[in-house]
Amino acid sequence: MLDTFMLGAIEAGGTKFIAAVSDQDLNVIDKISVPTTDPNQTLGKVADFFSSYSIAAMGVGCFGPLDLNHSSSTYGYIESTPKLAWKGFNILGALQAQYRIPIALNTDVNVAAFGELKRGAAVGEQSCIYITVGTGIGGGVVVDQQIFNGCHHPELGHIAVKRLPSDTFAGICPYHADCLEGLASGPALAKRANQEPNQIAKDDPIWELEAYYLAQAIVTYSLILSPAKIILGGGVMQQEHLLAMVKASVSQQLNHYIELPNLDNYIVRAQLKNEAAIIGGFILARDALRSE
Amino acid sequence: MLDTFMLGAIEAGGTKFIAAVSDQDLNVIDKISVPTTDPNQTLGKVADFFSSYSIAAMGVGCFGPLDLNHSSSTYGYIESTPKLAWKGFNILGALQAQYRIPIALNTDVNVAAFGELKRGAAVGEQSCIYITVGTGIGGGVVVDQQIFNGCHHPELGHIAVKRLPSDTFAGICPYHADCLEGLASGPALAKRANQEPNQIAKDDPIWELEAYYLAQAIVTYSLILSPAKIILGGGVMQQEHLLAMVKASVSQQLNHYIELPNLDNYIVRAQLKNEAAIIGGFILARDALRSE
Repeated sequence: MLDTFMLGAIEAGGTKFIAAVSDQDLNVIDKISVPTTDPNQTLGKVADFFSSYSIAAMGVGCFGPLDLNHSSSTYGYIESTPKLAWKGFNILGALQAQYRIPIALNTDVNVAAFGELKRGAAVGEQSCIYITVGTGIGGGVVVDQQIFNGCHHPELGHIAVKRLPSDTFAGICPYHADCLEGLASGPALAKRANQEPNQIAKDDPIWELEAYYLAQAIVTYSLILSPAKIILGGGVMQQEHLLAMVKASVSQQLNHYIELPNLDNYIVRAQLKNEAAIIGGFILARDALRSE
Repeated sequence: MLDTFMLGAIEAGGTKFIAAVSDQDLNVIDKISVPTTDPNQTLGKVADFFSSYSIAAMGVGCFGPLDLNHSSSTYGYIESTPKLAWKGFNILGALQAQYRIPIALNTDVNVAAFGELKRGAAVGEQSCIYITVGTGIGGGVVVDQQIFNGCHHPELGHIAVKRLPSDTFAGICPYHADCLEGLASGPALAKRANQEPNQIAKDDPIWELEAYYLAQAIVTYSLILSPAKIILGGGVMQQEHLLAMVKASVSQQLNHYIELPNLDNYIVRAQLKNEAAIIGGFILARDALRSE
């Protein structure tokens, strides 16, 4: 292993790619953001950025679904996505061909969860779930301080939820009539209220609905994965009043069937804000270098 | 490690305890079943049985919820349970005091999942979920060939499910109006039909409901845990026609959002029937001995 080295990270999102370089202590040296257009153009701009630096390894958090099954012939490919230019694109292969260094790839939310566990809201814990509530709803899972993929990777945003009887909103997911993302993502809120989520009044009953669905999902995740912490991030969670409403609804829906830790310690805000996936990416890169 | 040794296993269920002794190759040497009354009486009869054998280690699958957090002061205790004689009972401590050998404790369903992965329906896989549909609905999880507990342990039977609009049944869970166990366990079926599940006609629409709820839970587990196999066991699953209905409903509810493996390989019957937790217990015992 080199005495001193630099690390690269990419957060590959549906609207923009963020690329960053850090020193070996994970201090950011440089960073850019480029719009997500097509693979050639976007990765070309990312390559221009990295060409000024000699990075030793790279960690990539990418929108999914991704094929992360090491024994699959399409390992490292982006699977079905509405972003057609990227559908079936071998993003890991493209990056490996370009950089010829160790590259760790996982989903954006898994890498963000890893960043929050290592440097953010779940430092010192063995496990966490990171949920981002924004344009979509996604979640990442860390177990035993490692990203949890299972055979594919978690798809926390598309679980079915039971509706409040009063809720007749059609939902916005093209796949499912009653999934979490379809009923409670930012665009779902906007469509319910006919205005942007950050403009909906704090006392609008829409927030009770929102809290109820997020809390229901948190109870389900807790019963199935039993993590040490649930971390909430994303644009919708920037509505300060929402977190307390979610915690109250979790308590009500769980109804003491199991005892969770004190909810103020268990359900917490993301600490790394927009940095979680980049910091997680640096740490994945460092781990990839160490396991060389 | 001894050259030859015997292993013990206990399946501690709510109505009966099964205790068994095997040789080092997991061949059963002797086995008994005793009714679950109170801890003194039940464990006394189990001790009488084991007193004829010199076992080197023991694996125990016990009804839950259990405290399996190693850093807890009540590690190895049975937590809240309607079986009041056992509530708060330190079952691991009682067994350790009695036998003074390595003892591995986990939930009955987790140990059964482990048995099915090692010797049953998921041999060769890295992960599985075992779901038993009977007096209650419970589930065990194996990840990377190890029992998965998280901070507590999975409680798969009590996740909320969305109802079919036509379903006005009140449910039978005292904690939750719409949880899987409350709507789809054996007693729920019996109450819906006013007869025992094995007497309900195969073409009764109740089975469509049952398949729908089980399938919904399987989709949720799949999205969150992404296992290699889902294994179904328990009394209700002995209705032969139900498995195909469950698979059809999974396919419909998932609606191609992610691609699961071929459902005939993915959703399968338990192979070890009533032996899964005992076989899993023997293997846990052997592992405990090896890690001494």
